[in-house]
Amino acid sequence: MPAEADIIARIARKVPSRPSAALPLSIGDDAALLRPPKGKHWVLTCDAFAEDVHFLARAQPAAAVGYKALARAVSDLAAMGATPRVFLLTLGLPAHRTGAWLDAFLRGLARAARAYDLVLAGGDTFRSSAVFVTITVIGEIAVGHAIQRSGARPGDRIYLSGVAGAAELGLQLILRGLDRSRRWKTLLRAHFFPEPRLKLGSWLAKHRLASAMLDTSDGLSTDLDHLCRASGTGARIFATRLPVVAVPAELRRQGFDPLHLALHGAEDYELLFTVPRHLVRKLPTRFGGVPLTCIGEITEPPQLLLVDENGALGPLPPAGWDHFRTPRGRR
Amino acid sequence: MPAEADIIARIARKVPSRPSAALPLSIGDDAALLRPPKGKHWVLTCDAFAEDVHFLARAQPAAAVGYKALARAVSDLAAMGATPRVFLLTLGLPAHRTGAWLDAFLRGLARAARAYDLVLAGGDTFRSSAVFVTITVIGEIAVGHAIQRSGARPGDRIYLSGVAGAAELGLQLILRGLDRSRRWKTLLRAHFFPEPRLKLGSWLAKHRLASAMLDTSDGLSTDLDHLCRASGTGARIFATRLPVVAVPAELRRQGFDPLHLALHGAEDYELLFTVPRHLVRKLPTRFGGVPLTCIGEITEPPQLLLVDENGALGPLPPAGWDHFRTPRGRR
Repeated sequence: MPAEADIIARIARKVPSRPSAALPLSIGDDAALLRPPKGKHWVLTCDAFAEDVHFLARAQPAAAVGYKALARAVSDLAAMGATPRVFLLTLGLPAHRTGAWLDAFLRGLARAARAYDLVLAGGDTFRSSAVFVTITVIGEIAVGHAIQRSGARPGDRIYLSGVAGAAELGLQLILRGLDRSRRWKTLLRAHFFPEPRLKLGSWLAKHRLASAMLDTSDGLSTDLDHLCRASGTGARIFATRLPVVAVPAELRRQGFDPLHLALHGAEDYELLFTVPRHLVRKLPTRFGGVPLTCIGEITEPPQLLLVDENGALGPLPPAGWDHFRTPRGRR
Repeated sequence: MPAEADIIARIARKVPSRPSAALPLSIGDDAALLRPPKGKHWVLTCDAFAEDVHFLARAQPAAAVGYKALARAVSDLAAMGATPRVFLLTLGLPAHRTGAWLDAFLRGLARAARAYDLVLAGGDTFRSSAVFVTITVIGEIAVGHAIQRSGARPGDRIYLSGVAGAAELGLQLILRGLDRSRRWKTLLRAHFFPEPRLKLGSWLAKHRLASAMLDTSDGLSTDLDHLCRASGTGARIFATRLPVVAVPAELRRQGFDPLHLALHGAEDYELLFTVPRHLVRKLPTRFGGVPLTCIGEITEPPQLLLVDENGALGPLPPAGWDHFRTPRGRR
């Protein structure tokens, strides 16, 4: 097994970590230095990604573990409208993951770092019984531009980027042992390689179009509940308007329900945001190839309601992911 | 078991997390905002603290787990000469740790946050099979004042704050099952409640007295090796000058060797720093009650050498802690 210093050297070699004006030191000291740009706030977030909690090592390729660990943390910055700059990596590894598995993990991590223009600023490594990753991302945003969860007002239109339920479809294929079949390989992609909507987030922030925003990490129903609670409002959404994931007929016959996946499926990492009515005309129907769909509106009474396919109005329970409530068997 | 939102609310209630000029939002959004002060760098570090890796839950009181998780991360900022400002908490908990254990953990964490004037800026919580903590600390330092590991030059004097080996003595008492005895209770304190040397670190930085510095987290011999490698130098230290931990005669008879504990014992979180010879007279013998001891000097040949009690010169192997090399049985 390699020494700690060898593992750190491999990380530094494979993941972008060059010093720059904003990051004056290389990694290797006790802490990293950051020089803040004028007129900007720093934006900070951290996200854990643990084996058997957030991913299954037997099903998820090492490169996808590295990629997704960073992508999902970056998504929190997208949800504020911020631009990521540097990240810190905390990495716990069992001995049998310090060889080829670690190399593939670092390839995936480096791919995400390059895609989102991020530089590694430091971290912590240790031996553990399962793979354990925590990512801290620091980004920046112009003072006054950050989009919070709490700004939604009655009458605002509710928008969702991309497709809803695609990541959960991939996860459910894995949990039912269907991920080995070549037929469904492409359906795993949204679960393994989510794409944080950084450009959309920062465009919405810069043009002050969104009154509230977050990313759909826990699932649309639960994340909408978070947004409405923070804003002190309710919401009404329409089943027929949802950009639901396309599910092949054979899987639908096996019980995969597109609407259920779209409403409660976790980890899409799309942006869920609200737009004041008078600004709606400034919003394109697609942004950088990603569809933007109006799925409902914010209401004053603090309930979440769903208008179903038949036009009937009923309650929408927040049935997405809760780490401490969702039964273990679900993932 | 409580829901995720309840756990987050308890954390926010118990740990300082008020908004301020530097931290304009409360916790609860996807990311935290930081407003940087003029003429300062931000300093960033992250540190994992995991059950059965970094601590034993059966031996370490929950309050000490919370306190130490933050204290050891803060120590990395002390080692740069920086002042901590805000922190992020990533917390994985098994179901049976979400009740009284979590309350005691948060009390310890809050105690450290108040002691080091830190505010919680955000984080991530999830269910896991063992307790898993990652702390990210952000601090600040005047531009140009940060003390790196790489600045030591031949002839510089090597200093160590406090006492060496006290934390390892506590750990070894636990590992040998001697921690239940009331006689040795006070000897556990250095292991459970280390005190990061923030005031000393920032004083050294402000007065530009230290040419290189780090904290003794892995053990004096290994940390001195880190410092010398980064600086491209060697070092010679003197056994008779070391501020070794006081070991009761009965424990010495049981094989607890003060010199071995001082040289290779981990987790003291004292400051190890080098001072150019012409600045040595500016250094007090104590700082805020903590002794500062000259233990040797930096040399040009890149070896670590120890002058033993009889004046004989021999090699000093870096035999402190390496997460991937140290045998598991040691802790």
